[in-house]
Amino acid sequence: MEQSKIAEIVRNYRLTEGEYVMRPTMPALEDYTSYLRGIWDRRMLTNDAVLHQELELRLREYLGTEYLALLSNGTLALMIALRALNIDAGEVITTPFTFPATTHVLSWSGVTPVFCDVDPITFNIDATQIAGHISSRTKAILAVHVFGTPCDTAVIQAVADRYGLYVIYDAAHAFGVKYRGRSIVEYGDMAMLSFHATKVFSTIEGGALVCRTPAQNRRIKLLKDFGISAESEVIEPGINAKLDEFRAAFGLLNLPRIESEIASRKRISLIYRERLMGMPGLRFLPVLDEVEANFCYFPILVNNSEFGMTRDELNDLLRECNVMSRKYFCPLMSRVACYVALPSASPANLPRAEILSNQVLCLPIYGTLQVSTVHQVCDIIEAGYLCQRCR
Amino acid sequence: MEQSKIAEIVRNYRLTEGEYVMRPTMPALEDYTSYLRGIWDRRMLTNDAVLHQELELRLREYLGTEYLALLSNGTLALMIALRALNIDAGEVITTPFTFPATTHVLSWSGVTPVFCDVDPITFNIDATQIAGHISSRTKAILAVHVFGTPCDTAVIQAVADRYGLYVIYDAAHAFGVKYRGRSIVEYGDMAMLSFHATKVFSTIEGGALVCRTPAQNRRIKLLKDFGISAESEVIEPGINAKLDEFRAAFGLLNLPRIESEIASRKRISLIYRERLMGMPGLRFLPVLDEVEANFCYFPILVNNSEFGMTRDELNDLLRECNVMSRKYFCPLMSRVACYVALPSASPANLPRAEILSNQVLCLPIYGTLQVSTVHQVCDIIEAGYLCQRCR
Repeated sequence: MEQSKIAEIVRNYRLTEGEYVMRPTMPALEDYTSYLRGIWDRRMLTNDAVLHQELELRLREYLGTEYLALLSNGTLALMIALRALNIDAGEVITTPFTFPATTHVLSWSGVTPVFCDVDPITFNIDATQIAGHISSRTKAILAVHVFGTPCDTAVIQAVADRYGLYVIYDAAHAFGVKYRGRSIVEYGDMAMLSFHATKVFSTIEGGALVCRTPAQNRRIKLLKDFGISAESEVIEPGINAKLDEFRAAFGLLNLPRIESEIASRKRISLIYRERLMGMPGLRFLPVLDEVEANFCYFPILVNNSEFGMTRDELNDLLRECNVMSRKYFCPLMSRVACYVALPSASPANLPRAEILSNQVLCLPIYGTLQVSTVHQVCDIIEAGYLCQRCR
Repeated sequence: MEQSKIAEIVRNYRLTEGEYVMRPTMPALEDYTSYLRGIWDRRMLTNDAVLHQELELRLREYLGTEYLALLSNGTLALMIALRALNIDAGEVITTPFTFPATTHVLSWSGVTPVFCDVDPITFNIDATQIAGHISSRTKAILAVHVFGTPCDTAVIQAVADRYGLYVIYDAAHAFGVKYRGRSIVEYGDMAMLSFHATKVFSTIEGGALVCRTPAQNRRIKLLKDFGISAESEVIEPGINAKLDEFRAAFGLLNLPRIESEIASRKRISLIYRERLMGMPGLRFLPVLDEVEANFCYFPILVNNSEFGMTRDELNDLLRECNVMSRKYFCPLMSRVACYVALPSASPANLPRAEILSNQVLCLPIYGTLQVSTVHQVCDIIEAGYLCQRCR
């Protein structure tokens, strides 16, 4: 786009303050301070104290699951999932279209990631291609419900059952999502949740691991607390992945507001769709029949030849206008230096992920985002589109 | 001891409320809430935000060190230290007399711990025995400044230099300690600090890693934040070991009070020494000339044949009296199931550590502990001692 055109759009549409793709939902400070008074009275700041116990209970209820362990973040939850399933070597089949944590935990755990291409509609791992990547070294499938859209859990489970593999879901984006009438965390052998500040449900930093058996749950609780089972008994090598009381309090106040948070996000999502739908060359995540979504991200795909601008050009324009859109997830993890030499990282193995990663752009969405700002973001995109069209 | 005697001591001396070995020092809630107001305004909850940056700066100043990275806990700090020094296989020489985290991080990192016996006076690794454990697989020495007492850093460094090994110090107990006029964190290639709730300086949960070069510091900061160096650049496999703003605020309020915290602990330590000194069979940590101590723990050694009670009997008596004394560190890590089969874990290799672990008992000590409570604890120990003597 010509510089003069960009300057005109910036002049007309630039936001006065920078707008991020997401901001955390804050409870009322007074409510938070009430919880702090209790913490100050008890002087128990961490180590499975009362607020931690209460939040674990409430989350089990809300998510409709029996075994859930709170952990200090989602990354450590995945590390502990691998350890709890005794996966410390061999290969795990995963998606390249994800946040770095998914792939890095495999590497930290001594496991080789094997990248499988994605489904172009859901952006998730293409379940039908997983079997083609299985070798004698394959231990598990680590799939991600990217942007909260459920993976094809039925096909993934069928493949896993047939080949005797574990299924671990990275559900970092999928808090509160339901699929076919069941909580998303009920699928697979284990499911990881992230409660980072930027997530739909947040505990400042934090996460959880959902599993299926009391034995798994006991082991996860050992692994997150140094493997200590009693004052003088250490069972196995564990680390410190404890969630503190300050984070638990934050979560306890956010949890009752989760439905309204999701409803606000849904409204924003609908505005984006209505405003942007008419522009050829933009594509959105599908609205799926059997999914209760959480609207955690609003990614768009920019098809250069139809839209008239590349994703990077649109991203630059938005940033010039003070909208901090994000190229989630670019680069693909298969393009990252430490993984690029893996045979499965070859772009020829991942043609759809390559296209997706070059077209995707995430727009601002969070519960307290002003509707007027959503329209401003759409105005900028529309102005860019029209400007290219009218040449 | 006879049950009737125990009952009499309990009747005379039992504390009305349970007393722990340590309780966290809390800043004033109003001061903490002031910091929270800033967090609520900025809505940046984590990821190297302003309070995090400020605490890192203040800690560098207070500790007199150039390169320090805040991390979410001491265990992850040690894991990142190993990774930053490319230690992911082979052997590391370490002490069995420590909290499980020290040994577990080696195991999690693919490294075999090699246990070396301890010095019976300082309870630290016996520096003169380290060379005898070096093999072609040895990568480093992981020594612990147990209970804040400095290791024999000169001999350790000389051995390391001679054999080309890294030296990593677990300084979890040693915040604020000075040795030979220098901050304790200035010794070795890297030093880990823990800021857990029970430490002299606390950030609820938290820790730090001190290193020597800008390149190491950059790498540590990459490793704690997913290996992400810029929005679209991922350098290497990193994890999430970020300290959040709520913890940074807690630390910022505790740091200016550290001198008074240490002074209070020193007073308590002196009372214990004065009261217990006259009882044969009890031994304490030495008061060392070149050490500015932090009085983080008050361990005593109970020699059964001289004192008339075993350590376990004294521990039971204290607990009957509502004093939650702790057997730090028992079991030795060489006695823990996952390490007991290692050749270096043989009790014959660790005779002094075995004795130490069977004799040690930690008494309550923390800044706000009442002097009257310290005397009550001493009364109980004295009553037990006299009761055995008068038989």
